[in-house]
Order: sequence, then C-alpha cells, then structure tokens
Amino acid sequence: MRKPKSLFFFIFSLLCSISVYGQNHPNLLLSKSQINAVRSGCELYPLLKKSYQKLKNDADAALSIPINVPIPKDGGGGFTHEQHKKNYTNILNCGIAYQISGDKKYADYVKSMLLNYASQYQAWPIHPKSKDKADGGRIFWQSLNDFVWQIYAIQGYDLVYETLSKEDQSTIENKLFIPILQFFTEDRKAIFDQIHNHGTWNLAAVGITGYVLNQPKYVEMAIKGSNLDGKTGYLAQMDELFSPDGYYMEGPYYQRYALLPFILFAKAINNYQPERNIYNYRNQLLSKAIQASLQSTYTNKVFFPINDAIKDKNYESAELIYGVDLAYADLKPEADLLDIASQQNKVIVSDAGLKVAKAISEGKTEPFKYTSQWLRDGGKGDEGGLGILRHGPNTDQQCLVFKATSQGMGHGHFDRLNMLFYDHNGEIFSDYGSARFLNIDTKGGGKYLPENDTWAKQTVAHNTLVVDQTSNFNAKLNLAQGTHPDLLYFNVDANLQIISAKEENAYPGVKLIRTSALVKVEESPKPLLIDVFHAQSESTHQYDLPFWYQGQLVNTSFKFSANTNNLQALGDKSGYQHLWLNAINQLDENGGLVTVLNNNRFYTTHFVSENSLVIKQVTLGANDPNQNLVVNKAFILSQPAAKNQTFVSITETHGNVDSINELVAASNSNVQNLKLISSNPDKVTIAFELNGKKYQYEISYQSKKEFIKLTKQ
Amino acid sequence: MRKPKSLFFFIFSLLCSISVYGQNHPNLLLSKSQINAVRSGCELYPLLKKSYQKLKNDADAALSIPINVPIPKDGGGGFTHEQHKKNYTNILNCGIAYQISGDKKYADYVKSMLLNYASQYQAWPIHPKSKDKADGGRIFWQSLNDFVWQIYAIQGYDLVYETLSKEDQSTIENKLFIPILQFFTEDRKAIFDQIHNHGTWNLAAVGITGYVLNQPKYVEMAIKGSNLDGKTGYLAQMDELFSPDGYYMEGPYYQRYALLPFILFAKAINNYQPERNIYNYRNQLLSKAIQASLQSTYTNKVFFPINDAIKDKNYESAELIYGVDLAYADLKPEADLLDIASQQNKVIVSDAGLKVAKAISEGKTEPFKYTSQWLRDGGKGDEGGLGILRHGPNTDQQCLVFKATSQGMGHGHFDRLNMLFYDHNGEIFSDYGSARFLNIDTKGGGKYLPENDTWAKQTVAHNTLVVDQTSNFNAKLNLAQGTHPDLLYFNVDANLQIISAKEENAYPGVKLIRTSALVKVEESPKPLLIDVFHAQSESTHQYDLPFWYQGQLVNTSFKFSANTNNLQALGDKSGYQHLWLNAINQLDENGGLVTVLNNNRFYTTHFVSENSLVIKQVTLGANDPNQNLVVNKAFILSQPAAKNQTFVSITETHGNVDSINELVAASNSNVQNLKLISSNPDKVTIAFELNGKKYQYEISYQSKKEFIKLTKQ
Repeated sequence: MRKPKSLFFFIFSLLCSISVYGQNHPNLLLSKSQINAVRSGCELYPLLKKSYQKLKNDADAALSIPINVPIPKDGGGGFTHEQHKKNYTNILNCGIAYQISGDKKYADYVKSMLLNYASQYQAWPIHPKSKDKADGGRIFWQSLNDFVWQIYAIQGYDLVYETLSKEDQSTIENKLFIPILQFFTEDRKAIFDQIHNHGTWNLAAVGITGYVLNQPKYVEMAIKGSNLDGKTGYLAQMDELFSPDGYYMEGPYYQRYALLPFILFAKAINNYQPERNIYNYRNQLLSKAIQASLQSTYTNKVFFPINDAIKDKNYESAELIYGVDLAYADLKPEADLLDIASQQNKVIVSDAGLKVAKAISEGKTEPFKYTSQWLRDGGKGDEGGLGILRHGPNTDQQCLVFKATSQGMGHGHFDRLNMLFYDHNGEIFSDYGSARFLNIDTKGGGKYLPENDTWAKQTVAHNTLVVDQTSNFNAKLNLAQGTHPDLLYFNVDANLQIISAKEENAYPGVKLIRTSALVKVEESPKPLLIDVFHAQSESTHQYDLPFWYQGQLVNTSFKFSANTNNLQALGDKSGYQHLWLNAINQLDENGGLVTVLNNNRFYTTHFVSENSLVIKQVTLGANDPNQNLVVNKAFILSQPAAKNQTFVSITETHGNVDSINELVAASNSNVQNLKLISSNPDKVTIAFELNGKKYQYEISYQSKKEFIKLTKQ
Repeated sequence: MRKPKSLFFFIFSLLCSISVYGQNHPNLLLSKSQINAVRSGCELYPLLKKSYQKLKNDADAALSIPINVPIPKDGGGGFTHEQHKKNYTNILNCGIAYQISGDKKYADYVKSMLLNYASQYQAWPIHPKSKDKADGGRIFWQSLNDFVWQIYAIQGYDLVYETLSKEDQSTIENKLFIPILQFFTEDRKAIFDQIHNHGTWNLAAVGITGYVLNQPKYVEMAIKGSNLDGKTGYLAQMDELFSPDGYYMEGPYYQRYALLPFILFAKAINNYQPERNIYNYRNQLLSKAIQASLQSTYTNKVFFPINDAIKDKNYESAELIYGVDLAYADLKPEADLLDIASQQNKVIVSDAGLKVAKAISEGKTEPFKYTSQWLRDGGKGDEGGLGILRHGPNTDQQCLVFKATSQGMGHGHFDRLNMLFYDHNGEIFSDYGSARFLNIDTKGGGKYLPENDTWAKQTVAHNTLVVDQTSNFNAKLNLAQGTHPDLLYFNVDANLQIISAKEENAYPGVKLIRTSALVKVEESPKPLLIDVFHAQSESTHQYDLPFWYQGQLVNTSFKFSANTNNLQALGDKSGYQHLWLNAINQLDENGGLVTVLNNNRFYTTHFVSENSLVIKQVTLGANDPNQNLVVNKAFILSQPAAKNQTFVSITETHGNVDSINELVAASNSNVQNLKLISSNPDKVTIAFELNGKKYQYEISYQSKKEFIKLTKQ
C-alpha cells in the first residue's frame, strides 16, 4: 500500500483548477487542433492510411445495417451481449470516420444510436444474467462491460458533439450519460472505490465523461475516489496496483486489460488539465507500465500466461495499440516502439497514431529491445517480482520466466517459484493459463470453468514444486494473499544470467529456494537452462517437480512402459485428480534424461538428485466429465520421502529436424555426467560435461558477491 | 498394368541412336550453353540470386570443414548416415558453385570428395544395419539411399568434369561409378526391375550415370529394363505407376518422392536424346504428374496425408522445387506455377530456375489455380481415384478430399472411402498420416513404428466406416491389393460439388456407398459439407463412422459425462486397442450435433440416421507403451446392430472468435431439423432447415442424369 505523503497536498493544490474546463470538442484521442494534420496523415502515411481505411470500412458496414439496440438479455457471447459490444465499437468508429472524412452521415449514425440508448436506458433494470446484484450491469451481465461501453460511447459523443443540436445534446446527456454516471458512482460505488481493474474501468469512464460533459465533480471523484480523500480513485490505483517498475499485480494478461482505462484517462487528464502533469506521476509510472507490459511478452507476441490468462492474447490487442501509440507520441519517442507498432500493423486513428505512422514511414523503426529484467511486484516494489531472462536475437530468442510475484488477488495461481521456458519462437515448458473458453456460451457461459479452480490454479498445473501432493497454501487465497516470495539474487551478464528466489510460506515447515539460470558456454550454440530447486524441511515430505512440456517425447535414459489399458488418475485433489498416470518409473540411478522434440528442435533435460528419483509421466484429462481441459503432457521428477531435497536439471537445446529436406542433426544431447556433488542449505555444487569439457557450477546462497561460480576445468 | 502396343516399336525405332552421345559437360540441369545466362541471372533476378547465395553459403560452409567419408555404420538419423547425406548435398552444391562462380576451389572439393569415395567404395560390404541382404546399400542401410547418393554425385561429377585430369576421371569412373552401376544393376537387379519408387531411383541413377559416362548400355537398361524388353525400366514405370491423370498409386507423399528421379532422368534424356521426345510420352504424363502432385496439396502447402505420409511435408520440398521449375521451363510455362515457385522461395540454380526467376521478376505470377477434380488411379485410369472438391479463394479455401483409390501397395492404408476436410488453412477432419518420426533414431531407428501397422493403417484411424470393429480386408494387403472402389458420380458446379463412390470388397457381404458434397446455399457464407454414408448388408453388423477432428469440442446436443477415472481401451484389435474410450452415449433421438472450435472458427456436425445412434468419444493413446502416438480425438457415430445403415451428416462452418479483440460471432449453428426422410438402395432423401429456409437433398444412386437433387422449399 503506497501512499505518498504529498498526495493530499497535491490534490489540494489542484482544487482551484477544477471548476470548469475549457471545452473544445473533440478533445480526447483526436483533438481539434490536430484534426487537419491527422486528416492529411491518413493520406500520407501507409500505416495510418491502412488503419483509417479499415476503420472506415467498419464504419461503412455499420451504416449499412439498421441500428439495433436490443433490450439486454444474454450473457457473454450471447446475442444482445455481442450486439451491444458491436454498438459501442460502431459509435467510436463512426465518430472518428466523421472527423476524418467530414461526412456527416457518420455523425448522424452516432446521434441516432445514442438517442436510441437514451430512449431506453433508464427503463432497463439490472441485467437478468448478472451473477449478483452488486456486480450486474444494465447493458451487460457484468457492470465491467457497461464501464467499457461508456468509455467508447463518450468518445463517440465527443467526436460528433459539434454536429448535435442543443436539444439532442441535452437528451443524450440527461437521459443517458448522467444516469450512467449516477449508476456507476452510486449503485456501483463499491466497485468505483475498489482498487482493482473493474474499479479502474469504472472511474476512467466516469472521469472522461466528467471532462466531456464539463462535470468537474465526477472528474474529481474519479481522480480522488468517491470521498475525494485520495484513498481510492485513479491516483490511488496508480499507487497500489502497479509496482514502481510498472508491473501490475494480477499479471500480464490483466495488466494489458487494465492498462487501457489508465491510458485513456491519463490522456484526457493531460488534454483537459495539463497542469496535473499526470504523465510524470510516480516517476512516469504510465510509461513504465506500458514498457512492462511489452516486456511481459515473448517474441511470438504472446503475453506470459501466468495467473488467469487466455493464452492466445498478444500485444496486437487494442489495449497495447493504444499503449504503444500513446507511449511513443506523448511519453517518450523510443524508436523500438515503432517495431511493435509495425507488428501490430495498426495505429489508433488519432493524434498519437499520426506520430507513430509518420515516424515509421520515415524509417525510424528499430528492433524492439527485449531485455532481461527483474520486475518488482507490490506498490513499494517489495513483494517479490517477475524475473525474465533472455538470450539471442528477436528472431530466435531463448527466454526464461521466473514467477516470484505476490499472489495477485483472485486471478492469481498457486504457483510460487514457477518457471516458464521459451525457445525458437514457442513454448518449451509451458503454463496452462486459465481454463476458460472466453465468450463461448456453450462452455460454462464463456466464463471461467470449474476446472480453472480445480486444475489451472493448482500448483501441479505449473512447473514448480508440489509438496505432499497439495497445492501452495492449500489453494486458499486468503492465506496466499498475505505473503510473497523474496528475491535472493538476480544478475545478468552476457553469458550468465541468474535468478534465485525463496518461498517460505507456501508450505508450512518447508523452505523452498529455486535458482534458475541461462548459461551460455562455448561448447553449446544455445544457452543451457540450469535449474536447481532446493527444499528444506525438518520433517519428511513427498516432493514432485513437474515439467509441462510441449512437443513429443522422443527419448528417455530409462526404459518405461506406459500403461496400456486401464488408465487412472494420479490423485484425488489439488489438481492431481485431473492427471492420467501414463507411467511410473523408479530409477536405479540418481539421474537421467528426457528428450522432447518440439517444432523441429530437441530439448534434453538431464536431471539428478541426492537419491534416485521416481519419474511419473502424466497426461491431463482425468475427472473432466465435460472435456473442458486441453490435453497437455508432463514428466514429474518425484521424491517419495525426504526431508531436504534438491532437484537439479540442465535442459540443453540442441539439434534440428528439417522435415522438408528430411535432415536430422544433433538429435543426441551433448551434456553428460551431470552430478550433484553436494547440497546443503548454504551451498549446492554440481558438475557436468559438455563435449568432453568439465564444468562445475556452484551456488552459494549466502554470498551476494559470488552467488554463482561457474568453472571450466 | 498399361502396356501400349507401340512400346516395342518405339524402342526399336530408337535403337540406332544409342551408340554414343554427344558429350558436353555439364549437360544435366545446368547445360554448357546456358551457363553464361544463368550466371548473369544470378545477379539479375532476385529469386535466383537468393537461391544461389544460399547454395554458395552452403558450399562455403562445406569447404570450411575437412572432408569426412566415414566407413558406413549407422542407420537412419545416425552419424555416418547423416554424414553421407551431407556429402552428396555438398558434392552437388560445390559443383554448381564452381560453374556459377568459376572458382576452382569448389571443383577441387568435389574432386577430393569423389576420389575419397573412390578409394574406399569397393572395400565396403553391404551396410551392417541393412534389414535384409537383398535391400541393403553399401553407403546407407538401405540401397534406396545409395541410389539417391548417386543421383547427386553424378551431377556433381558432370559439373566439375572439365576440371579433372584424365587420370582422376578414370579413377572416379572405374573405382566408384562403374562399381556403383554394377552394384545397382546386378546386386540390386531385383529392385532395378521393380515397378516401385525404389526402382525408379535406381534406374534414374543408372541412366543418368550412363549418359554422363557415355555408357549407352546402362542408359538402355534404365529406359527398357535390365532385359531391354520394356517390361520393366523407366517407360514401364511411367506406364504403370501413374494413372493417365498423373496420380501416383502410392499417394501424394510418395508421389512427391518418386517424382524427382522421374524428372531428373527425363531432363537427362531430353538433353542427350531429344529425339526420344520424352516430355510428350504418354500424353505429357510428366507434366500431369507434377500438376497432380501440386493439386494434391491444401492451401497450407501440405500434401494430403493419405496412406503412409509424414504430415509436415509440403510443396516446398526439393522434389517439387525441381518439379515446378522444370514444368514451367521445359513443359508448359503456366503463370500460376510461378505462384508456387514464389511460395517455395527458391529455385534450382539451373537453366530452368533461370526461366522461373526471370518470369517472376517480370511480374508474370498468377495465383495458383487449385481446382476441384477427380484424379483417376491405375495405369489405365480404371482403378478408382482421388476426389478433390474445393471452394473459395486460396486465402480461405474449403476442401474435401475423398479417397477412393486403389490400395497403393505396402504404404497403402485400409481406408476405403475415407474423407478429409479442410477449411481456414488447416485440417478440420484429419488423417493421422503415418506413425513415424522420420530419421529420429531414438524412435524405432527413425523408421515406421510398430504403431504404423497397428494404428495408422487401420480403418478406424480414418474418417470412414468400420464394420464390426474390423479393418477393411482384415488389414491384409494381398486381399486389398486386388480390388478398388468405383466412382459412381462426380460433378462440379459452382455451388454444388459432389462425389460418390462405392466399395464392395472391403467387407464381405457389405456394400458401402459414400456420397460427399460441398453445397453452397445463400443462407450460409461457407459451403455445407453434406455426407451420406450408406451400408447395405443381408446380415447384421456393427457400424462405426469416426470423425477425427482437430480443435476443441465445445458443444453437443446430448449431455455426456466423460469417464472421470479408470480409462479403458475401446477394443483389442484393428486399431481399437489404441483408443481410450472417454464417453459412450446412447442417444434418445435419431439425430444430434457436435460442435468443434478450431482455429477460431466453429464446425458443427449435425447427424441423423434411421435409428438412434450411440456416440463414442475417444482419445488416441491406449496400448502405446512407448508413447509413440500423437494425441488425437474423435467422435464416432455408431450403430450397434443393423443390416442396412445410413449415416447422414451436415457439417456447417460458422462463426468466428477474435481472441485479440475478444469478440465471438455466430457460435451457434444455423442448420436445424436435419431429417432422414427415406433411405433405400436406390435413393436417400434428407431434409434440413437453414435460417428458416427448408431444403431437401435427394441422392438417386441409379440416375446419372439427376444423381443429386437439391430443392429449396
């Protein structure tokens, strides 16, 4: 909970400026002073031209169909839900099309649409499909969608304002927008004051509407909370939802989603009250949040799917198009942002989009600078964080994601010290993301499925340690919410990138330390992923470390025989009930290897431990009567009973399959003789060979100076 | 078995011309007269320039590493196997690099390499990893690879011939190529005379070598078979392996592979003996074979994976690059071939590649003309065939493949009347292809896995009818090889494309007729796939019709409950032993629906039958101790006991999920009330509604004139 001392003073000092704003229309993403420049930019700059053409086609398509404002009835994915979503998109598109083309037919469409809503809105009760009365919208099943609707609608209104008669303005404002403001701030006051993305959407809608309608009261509430005391509201949300590094506590998927209202409201504040200097708030937090969001993607453009996340969501989503355009135009014109904008293949038809498209057409683009970094979590930056290690060019990058963040509220997963591994533009060791078919009505109404709780959130669904076949904190949010892992060490050299963190609360009486590294040695063209997971306890536990792999298993050091008939679940709770046990192998030796073929490359994971392990091979899908789960496979390194336990693994990326030319290279791993020399709470020493060269790798948990020592013998 | 009466006369009339050829070097893909033009083309035309640059880089890389000609030891994917493959590639690349650059260092590399082989070859016994002594090579585990090696090596030799001393020429010819010719034609005489792709590679290697070494005896043997009687050899292979439409009896995957030696040898014949008029042989069969091969791909470039096929093989493979370049340059300069060449992004650095790259740079490219067609199978074109129906532009094409071909020898699958369905650039109802990890040594030595026989070839692995849980012909090749399905009807109109075929031998006493159609009606933006599978028998049988779908099941008309624990195999033979039974549902009604979400589009299969069906939901993977199988899912329409049985289904393509913008459209199917009005051996009548419009669809099996009648009421 961050609350800068200066906040009250800051607010006080602005009080004088809140009475009435200088009213120009439009004055949000498109501003009156820039209209002519944007208009000619729509001819001059290919990306803006294309973006406008697409928008105009959509606007024309909207005009070709009669306006339909149905009485709200259906849930997510259903007809009225999708129709109202189409309507708000059409309102905004036609507003912009009017400003750029000057053709009043688009403005008339917006007018008719808004008048139609104004004629009905006040008669609509809380949506019949709402989950509970405190959360339901009036247009949509949840009020969140109403907030989004309003953010689009008020922009459309601002864009066509100049074409409306006083009477129409009055009708739309008094019968639609003012009732909406009242609904959002009174009936949905709890959400308005909630430090949560639903709250952000609510207050951004209220604040922007306040500016456009010249209603300073609502603007002030949006900025300072409904009590105007700064304990809630926009600034408090900026303080508390983001870390000083711009990481959003719910994770990248929701960061993307939450970002849009932050950006749009900031833009409105900046246009109407530049004296608030909102872009510099909290050391340019907004800029950091946009950057953190982009840095939370892999080179396949997709957001790291930690916590509840739809896995195909990427930075081409509208939120990031707004984010990148605004970041470049208003915050800092960094040339590598143009790379993202080019990939997005779209700009917002706006003042910001103009600058971006112009810069791209002038050849200013540079490749996006993905960097290894530790993104601190928590308002003060002291609640763990997300570690990202990267190696190689954007065209063939290796990336390790290390999750040591706080719980992240209700969408958080119970996966302390989880690790994701990417290579060759795809997932190698993957995260399931959420169990949800977004907006697909036949799949649980498009909402989170029951398996999101019973599977996706559970610890075993992730590449991290499970103790006694039970999830972190017994999967209890209230227990998990109060604590976080702690960073032990983070360092990035060109050839040695390391992250180490500990977690002492997930399992009572068990201390977990994980140290993951990308280690580039000259004998291997790609870095080795060296992972040491160390558990300490005074009592005996079962320890399971799953590796959820993508691709096909093609080799193992041990001979296994998968169950041929009669497949059963591995357990009965904590996600284990969803695992079919294909094979269980008690090894004779302390170590071994598993090779997976993924997208024509080989990944061999060598592993070793103090004692010989049991390897379990599992497939997701048990206890899934509705077949809601997507098939995935894992091998689990398992120690049935131990107090202290160290799982050491080295994953080597090697070889190549050229299916077109039927060539296979280096299908065998070059790492050999992986040994665990010693392991104690202070120090772990391992040794391995690579193409005949001997290496020793030593972790000294107590030493900040020489945490890792890699020696070649 | 096709043997034109004129063949002997044709051969006889050429006998005078065989004594000695005019010897120019090079005179194969690159010919002396064109060298200067190709050289300058490597500067002028982007695609040729890029192709040459890549080749030269590879040649330079080869030169940077010492020559390694190891004593043959390893099987497919192993070190010596891959090294000898690299060597033949390097020989050819360096030969071409020498001719284009004029730099003798490349020629010297080829010389050294060939002299090295010459110094060892005669000492090498049959390869130690050979499966049997009649099939083993001396360089590779199977002689097939030796034939390929020689086709590359002789081209390299031809390219550097002018730089070699008489002594080196003599050493290479007498210690390497002549012994190879002897090995191929004497020790491997059985293969040389076999009407099979191994035979083609053998005789092409022998024939081309015969030309280059000026050894007419070997050329004549290659063309007319070892007895010079025309019963075997190149022309006999052209007659028997291809149908008059250019379809190759083993299917597209092997067609691609078999094509290369046909093309290369044809080019050699044409250069050395243009009077043979080989390109016009059998009504330009070679041109038809190349076209048939391209037409046997979907818009994702991948070959239809019927029979044994590696599923990621596409028309970018070397064979088709040769094929397309040669087809355009030497056979018929069709502008749409340039589209394929552009997609291949490569041309052969050759006389033909020059023409293609030049034409592309001149902007002559047109989109490839995919067409609906019936490709006849069998030397005379009377042994069934492959039906292909297509609708829509190459960017979003729907495609139905109907397999009614002959068995296709040992690589054939037991899947009479199998159907594959594609849309949106991907598989919807798919074929497993073969069970094989090509060249991955740890997976059964990279050869066909045992599951290729126990699973991939079995009927239930395909989208076709299984009677009594037993495969066609009890999966006995000798039984299957003697018969073939017969075409009943094929017709292609813009909005009504139909194929119907019958199979009377696969199951004794059961007659099968399948009629599949792509039907475009105005109420649906995409065609409906209407499929009527009719079985007639005088005795009672169990009938299973599997739909192997890609994607995720999101809706069913019936409520099911998948087995939650304790999964068992559906059967114990004919592939059923590999199916985990997830759910078995006895329906109350005669019909129902299943919706699958695949690549953000919905596919709803409505089905109906005379009586209510049992729907089985299955997942591949049982009885697979080595986890060799790739997970796939199917729903099976099943009739436990009936004499005559009709499975009617309509698969509607509908809706759209825009994950980026979180929009879902038309997730519910618009087809309703599918009914089977009547079904008898002469006629099947069905009815359905689409957006309220009533349709009737009638198949009259006996009527050629009005086989299908579609009426809108």
